[in-house]
Amino acid sequence: MKIARAVVDGSPRIVVVSDAATRIAPTDHPDDALVAIESARSGAAESWEQVDLDALHLAAPVSGAGKIIAVGLNYADHTSETGFTQPERPLTFAKYATSISGPSDDIVVPGHVTRQVDLEVELALLIGRRCGGTTPATLDDVAAYTVANDVSARDVQFGDTQWTRGKSFDTFTPLGPWLVTADEFGHPAGHRVYGTVNGEILQDDDTSEMIFDVPTLLAFVSDGVTLEPGDLILTGTPAGAGAFRNPARYLAAGDEVVCGIDGIGELRNRVVVR
Amino acid sequence: MKIARAVVDGSPRIVVVSDAATRIAPTDHPDDALVAIESARSGAAESWEQVDLDALHLAAPVSGAGKIIAVGLNYADHTSETGFTQPERPLTFAKYATSISGPSDDIVVPGHVTRQVDLEVELALLIGRRCGGTTPATLDDVAAYTVANDVSARDVQFGDTQWTRGKSFDTFTPLGPWLVTADEFGHPAGHRVYGTVNGEILQDDDTSEMIFDVPTLLAFVSDGVTLEPGDLILTGTPAGAGAFRNPARYLAAGDEVVCGIDGIGELRNRVVVR
Repeated sequence: MKIARAVVDGSPRIVVVSDAATRIAPTDHPDDALVAIESARSGAAESWEQVDLDALHLAAPVSGAGKIIAVGLNYADHTSETGFTQPERPLTFAKYATSISGPSDDIVVPGHVTRQVDLEVELALLIGRRCGGTTPATLDDVAAYTVANDVSARDVQFGDTQWTRGKSFDTFTPLGPWLVTADEFGHPAGHRVYGTVNGEILQDDDTSEMIFDVPTLLAFVSDGVTLEPGDLILTGTPAGAGAFRNPARYLAAGDEVVCGIDGIGELRNRVVVR
Repeated sequence: MKIARAVVDGSPRIVVVSDAATRIAPTDHPDDALVAIESARSGAAESWEQVDLDALHLAAPVSGAGKIIAVGLNYADHTSETGFTQPERPLTFAKYATSISGPSDDIVVPGHVTRQVDLEVELALLIGRRCGGTTPATLDDVAAYTVANDVSARDVQFGDTQWTRGKSFDTFTPLGPWLVTADEFGHPAGHRVYGTVNGEILQDDDTSEMIFDVPTLLAFVSDGVTLEPGDLILTGTPAGAGAFRNPARYLAAGDEVVCGIDGIGELRNRVVVR
């Protein structure tokens, strides 16, 4: 099952997408994808109003997320290109949830703050229930998967040394195009993950190449840290992002960035500098 | 006006504390301190039920916070003791909101993850309305102030290089004992800020000694980043934390940590190792 969010007749709504039809969920919680997943699972979706998917402007499939836990240096080729040492355990950092934007929204670059904006395609996990803390989270705690672009202002990220600010400007986490429920997505390993700019493939790998796989990440990030429904975990990016190419290739106004994962879909965002 | 949260008759409630009386707010939003502040401002509090403050076990005054933006190296003496170079602009990082705990709750240390837990007393700001992004946040956007202990697992913090995980374990952000509204607290400079362990004063400074003052921090952290009601900003800690003493003095099971700011009050948390 695929769960999207869109503004329909001026109101944010949950949309259930299947091969047969796209339907609007009559939920009282328009921002709560988790409620919509449960409703659709119950079979209620059969009677929901149909809409034309192509006519919708999709919003990020998750709104009001709690925390975003991101993982760095989780593909060997990427670690090599950055010059960092491969960490012995997952390296995690945070992104602010206010950076989330929709699958076709503009990436709005604060041009007075950064001149080195870059893409990072990543598999994102949506936590479906309260877990972790004193017992490790597992794949059973993942409600759904989606595609994230962990947009990164490299000058700010490395200038600050702490990575959060350079990765958390508004619109710096395009997400979507929809959630794919865990049962439909299957095991998170074995999916092609790729990123392109203006049609040129910069990143192209497979989620099987993660150094720390998804079950290992879940156990690690939840050790001493409670995860809540709506939390997101970003699992790291493969090699090929613009900062680590020779010459470097940063995003410029007008660039079209596509980030995709087989089994989910694609983000397609245009770069605007303000 | 002081706004606290407590469990009363099994339910979380907002409590308004004044010299004259402590009263329970009949809000439908028991977790929303901002709603209670508005209600109390309207004068409605006069008729609310009185309770005995001393009989209450206070919870953290903010629940379900969005993001926590923390500032590092913001007092010169502290920067010197750490050996870091003084940053030319504020150095920010994130804490997960799930680390928030109450003003007298235990600090529960995951002993299998860290052996070097430390205190950091800090002035915390509660954002009262949506602000920032394309226009800088100002003091007018701050609803209230409170005391935070930015508890830090130094081995994890410095071992990871990214500071978030080592500062975000559950219970690692004691907060309280209540919110003091901005009008009552006055200008955020000029307040004594201190931290003690088992009665020994380790940290003792004044918020006037911040390198980047609160208005400067607000403008900086909101540049390109939208702040939302309920977001917290932690403004950095003064010198004297245990890791930077000679010899180092880390927190041990049974230690009682008190963090206080004049004009607000004190946190008093006991350390438990699990």
